Amino acid sequence: MNSNIPKLTLVGAGPGDPDLITLKGLKALAKADVVLYDALVSEEILNNCKSDCEFIFVGKRGGHPSVLQDSINFLIVEKAFEKGHVVRLKGGDPFVFGRGIEEIEYAQNHGIETEFIPGISSAVAAPGLAGIPVTARGVSDSFWVITGTKSDHSLSEDLKVAMKSTATIVLLMAMNKAAKIAKLYVENGLGETKIAVIQNGGTSNQKTGSGEIRN
Amino acid sequence: MNSNIPKLTLVGAGPGDPDLITLKGLKALAKADVVLYDALVSEEILNNCKSDCEFIFVGKRGGHPSVLQDSINFLIVEKAFEKGHVVRLKGGDPFVFGRGIEEIEYAQNHGIETEFIPGISSAVAAPGLAGIPVTARGVSDSFWVITGTKSDHSLSEDLKVAMKSTATIVLLMAMNKAAKIAKLYVENGLGETKIAVIQNGGTSNQKTGSGEIRN
Repeated sequence: MNSNIPKLTLVGAGPGDPDLITLKGLKALAKADVVLYDALVSEEILNNCKSDCEFIFVGKRGGHPSVLQDSINFLIVEKAFEKGHVVRLKGGDPFVFGRGIEEIEYAQNHGIETEFIPGISSAVAAPGLAGIPVTARGVSDSFWVITGTKSDHSLSEDLKVAMKSTATIVLLMAMNKAAKIAKLYVENGLGETKIAVIQNGGTSNQKTGSGEIRN
Repeated sequence: MNSNIPKLTLVGAGPGDPDLITLKGLKALAKADVVLYDALVSEEILNNCKSDCEFIFVGKRGGHPSVLQDSINFLIVEKAFEKGHVVRLKGGDPFVFGRGIEEIEYAQNHGIETEFIPGISSAVAAPGLAGIPVTARGVSDSFWVITGTKSDHSLSEDLKVAMKSTATIVLLMAMNKAAKIAKLYVENGLGETKIAVIQNGGTSNQKTGSGEIRN
């Protein structure tokens, strides 16, 4: 037992560079009793925590499967009641393909106070860091962020709709579907669409290649 | 004349809360000789600057027109050569409807070194802070950010395409077109679409209303 009030703060760590977390996120970490973090988070960020803070890694690494979402939800609640303030630190923004809302709702259903601190999503920042603004006056007045791989492993039907727009399209988790996506563009007469492929977005290892789909 | 190397760092200040700027943005401000900032930036953030830093407000305020983009570009270059390190601080993310790329390119064309530090865009964070994730497993596997008002003041044609998708649609700068947008949805048989209207997103004054378009 402890005298701390159980609390969950869901924090977005940003796209990889440890300096791209927000000041608000750092302040939450400094007050954390427990931090649950995943593989996309730079461990340097954890240096901002108290010396007696407990760290629990819940990500996927080196071929090992990640901790199941149900187990993460359970751990958050268990640790909040055991120790007090739990910070759940997720890469990017926890509400962009992050399942963050499931963790918030599970904690709330157990009577735990929750707070959300957004992070920079690589969906917007990685193109920016590659010198590609997602919108540009006279070129693109919208941008559309789509997951390349849905939870059932299929390609989102929304991509076919998106192709008909003038939007800058940002496809996340799409590398293993690249050939399929390129084929779809070519079949729809859009083979000359300008593309960029970005890896390790937001980290010091960010790499960008660009060209047209037909190249 | 001074001995400093002319440099432009374009920094995203985030959606309003002064603690939602990144650590990297704060570090750039601490080294700035001149800061050009606009109306969406919390002035508290400027407390992180050197005591001899020069501040130039270039935003729109109280009915007065904002400084023209050409003048901002010119000022950036002039100040970089006069004083050294210019930080251009913009609300949200400078590459999301921000014309940030024009400033970067203008400076580069004058031989000035540039750096880009992304910020949190209110397009993603304001819904998140209202408890609305822009994506949710099984509900929405994409989100589409569109400006409600294009540079020619018209409504983006992309909205009609976006309506046919399952994407969460985020409309920025759309309040003065709300009736027109609602009519478009109703005409397309989508009057029961769930909506939320968010004002002052990311600030301590954030207000959210929600319902269906027909309400």
